[in-house]
Amino acid sequence: MLPKLPFKYIDVDDPGVSYGEFSLTREEVPLTPFKASLFTVGPGHRTPRDQHAVRECWLVVDGKGVLVYDGEELEIEKGNLLYFESEKPHFVQNRTEQDLIIFSTWWSV
Amino acid sequence: MLPKLPFKYIDVDDPGVSYGEFSLTREEVPLTPFKASLFTVGPGHRTPRDQHAVRECWLVVDGKGVLVYDGEELEIEKGNLLYFESEKPHFVQNRTEQDLIIFSTWWSV
Repeated sequence: MLPKLPFKYIDVDDPGVSYGEFSLTREEVPLTPFKASLFTVGPGHRTPRDQHAVRECWLVVDGKGVLVYDGEELEIEKGNLLYFESEKPHFVQNRTEQDLIIFSTWWSV
Repeated sequence: MLPKLPFKYIDVDDPGVSYGEFSLTREEVPLTPFKASLFTVGPGHRTPRDQHAVRECWLVVDGKGVLVYDGEELEIEKGNLLYFESEKPHFVQNRTEQDLIIFSTWWSV
């Protein structure tokens, strides 16, 4: 069986943000120890504030942004990997003229 | 504590391939249920054939390639997510003029 996993865009209410989740199951068997999505934040836009029990990792796939994590600002760019502890609030701003693209994984502990 | 995880380039013998691993531990506490790396395959190059017990997921971060997975060829491109079952041989060729960049995660079952 070829290994490409499907990707499903989900409508979100946030202007300037597009969001897709990967289906990481095949025949109802969980294949991975995490869930995953790929999302884009357009120039001048930001994601909503997020806070949750699951832990999360982001890979910055393209562009630059300002991550606000637990009240602190951090400049992030293509190739950076970020780790969010459980219940730490976070969102990202795109202050540039270019799309910011992020691959997100999350999991329970 | 700010969440950026360090990234360490590792020398590989394969021409045209550069490879870096992320450190997903902090103070010796594992943070994630997977390991991760980011690697680049230059134009005209390929990765060595790989086969291992751990399961693996790739996100194609940039470019296009031809994945050879368990003897079958599959065209892959930016935004695709791939899943490799345990012990299935795999490698990727870059037949284009542009770098192919892949984010890899792997884990034991």
